[in-house]
Amino acid sequence: MKIEEIVKEIRNQDADAAWITTPLNVFYFSGYLSEPHERLLALLITAEGEQVLFVPKLEVEEVKASPFKGKVVGNADGEDPFKLVDYHFDKLLVENEHLTLKRQKELIDGFGVETFGDIDGAIKALRNVKTPEEIDKIKKAAELADKCIEIGVDFLKEGVTEKQVVRHIEYEIQTKYGVDQMSFDTMVLFGDHAASPHGIPGERTLKNNEYVLFDLGVVYEQYCSDMTRTVAFGTPDQKAKEVYDIVLKAEKEAINMIKPGVVIGDVDRKARGIIEEAGYGEYFLHRLGHGLGLEEHEYQDVAGHNTNKFVSGMVVTVEPGIYVPEQVGVRIEDDILVTEDGHEVLTHYEK
Amino acid sequence: MKIEEIVKEIRNQDADAAWITTPLNVFYFSGYLSEPHERLLALLITAEGEQVLFVPKLEVEEVKASPFKGKVVGNADGEDPFKLVDYHFDKLLVENEHLTLKRQKELIDGFGVETFGDIDGAIKALRNVKTPEEIDKIKKAAELADKCIEIGVDFLKEGVTEKQVVRHIEYEIQTKYGVDQMSFDTMVLFGDHAASPHGIPGERTLKNNEYVLFDLGVVYEQYCSDMTRTVAFGTPDQKAKEVYDIVLKAEKEAINMIKPGVVIGDVDRKARGIIEEAGYGEYFLHRLGHGLGLEEHEYQDVAGHNTNKFVSGMVVTVEPGIYVPEQVGVRIEDDILVTEDGHEVLTHYEK
Repeated sequence: MKIEEIVKEIRNQDADAAWITTPLNVFYFSGYLSEPHERLLALLITAEGEQVLFVPKLEVEEVKASPFKGKVVGNADGEDPFKLVDYHFDKLLVENEHLTLKRQKELIDGFGVETFGDIDGAIKALRNVKTPEEIDKIKKAAELADKCIEIGVDFLKEGVTEKQVVRHIEYEIQTKYGVDQMSFDTMVLFGDHAASPHGIPGERTLKNNEYVLFDLGVVYEQYCSDMTRTVAFGTPDQKAKEVYDIVLKAEKEAINMIKPGVVIGDVDRKARGIIEEAGYGEYFLHRLGHGLGLEEHEYQDVAGHNTNKFVSGMVVTVEPGIYVPEQVGVRIEDDILVTEDGHEVLTHYEK
Repeated sequence: MKIEEIVKEIRNQDADAAWITTPLNVFYFSGYLSEPHERLLALLITAEGEQVLFVPKLEVEEVKASPFKGKVVGNADGEDPFKLVDYHFDKLLVENEHLTLKRQKELIDGFGVETFGDIDGAIKALRNVKTPEEIDKIKKAAELADKCIEIGVDFLKEGVTEKQVVRHIEYEIQTKYGVDQMSFDTMVLFGDHAASPHGIPGERTLKNNEYVLFDLGVVYEQYCSDMTRTVAFGTPDQKAKEVYDIVLKAEKEAINMIKPGVVIGDVDRKARGIIEEAGYGEYFLHRLGHGLGLEEHEYQDVAGHNTNKFVSGMVVTVEPGIYVPEQVGVRIEDDILVTEDGHEVLTHYEK
């Protein structure tokens, strides 16, 4: 059980409790999802395993309707939530990557905390290895991403704008497939516009013999997919085709390496080596991939500096790209599940 | 100039520099907008007025195309950005509400920082009072929100679902009015579902003689609107109508008070008093409103505890509501600009 792992970590670090405030981490442990904006949302887990959820008072009824079965403290605007409970913690574990200096001061004042420890590492390790239920949701999200690419490709015609393709994909997937949310802003870029790896779809119109880059993902029951296809509209020129083939080779060979026990950084080096050897090393500026789950980018990086090994249950992206300014941009990205004895590619659209 | 105000604050606090990391604050001062996810984005402003923007290496070209004219430091994944520059700061101002413990440690290690001061207060004070250019953008966003309500109301018919109305509004405003982004997830709730102030639109179908609550906003050139209308479909029952009239009275009388010099908390008390007097005090659980600008919720709260006074150039929402579980939910919300001698209501849809 996830909560028991946190209790174990609290005891390992000789702490009194953990204070979890990242909304998706709160959801991961409590089943209750909320975006509190500037209001306080926190899950307190004590060394004794007690669970207390601090939410805006407005949300108390929603918490009661959620899977969370611990104590709920609702606090109204302007009220001091720390005065509604009576806790004192000498050592508290917090998320170093989420807790702000302001929130830290509230904990010092409100709970009398003297020492802080970090709970991020333990949570990342837990979230990194997906349960079968989580994997099912990511698979479904990946299937829907495949469907989005299909919808987008079918909609391509000369003169259509990048933005029109984005809107068409999102509208169709929402109205016909019940999707409520994309993982991130859908990206559709034509021709050399795709050479900007963070480009924003605009009013550029599609011409014949250009590549079209789709980078998109779908959220299914809070779990994300993230995939990229670069699709020829007509017959792009020889240089563009050459770049495409190099990226595809790098992607396939990198994916083929993935299995438990392989050093994650080696997979990045594999893809990068192929691209460098072909003479395009300077045009592949980003890491090869990243973890995928409740977030579209999550722990861990598939990057050269990562000396950890793949473990069964991890889900990562593999997404090499070559971006030659004012000429061509190609990226191909799939979502990969690490299995007991190898890997499974969760995204299927042809490439 | 905005940067000069920060330089002044650095000197007032006897600090060496300010380190700004909230993406919208970076945009506010630099004109460069980015969502760096887990990567580093920071604007460094020194006591001498030097400006240095730290961005992911991928984004360097985009920064060069932006209005920002200072120095740019692009750092690649896995690279330590603090090693790319040579700064030492004894005292650094940071955003206490944004800087995390992890990022604080990087600054101690990277810049040798010994003391931290807070820059949030100074930035909030600046952002709180809008320039004429900012006001023009908010007005445009408010106009588009009016249009969204109109589109939504025209689409109402028996049997339509909440989600269908949401999608129709967003699709129409995007395709016909060039809107790229809503301020937040559009809310459309039917009948007693609106009694959940944070309800999520679902498959509930519209019946005759229900109220329909729309809460939505549009982003125009990064500036947000945020408005709510509760609109009768057919003839809701007497009790619902009574609740509507109380909320409308509270909203109008609260708005009428707004002008420079008035204590902000008094406006909340005015609306709350009217609702309490009518016997519904326990059903109005949230603050009366909030600031509006680059964010849909920003400094300052229109709430009882706020002893600050209105100042010309502030933009706030006024949004009283009454939520009687399983019976009725009504909220009415407008965006209000504080002018030299009073106020201007920026949202116009009838109520």
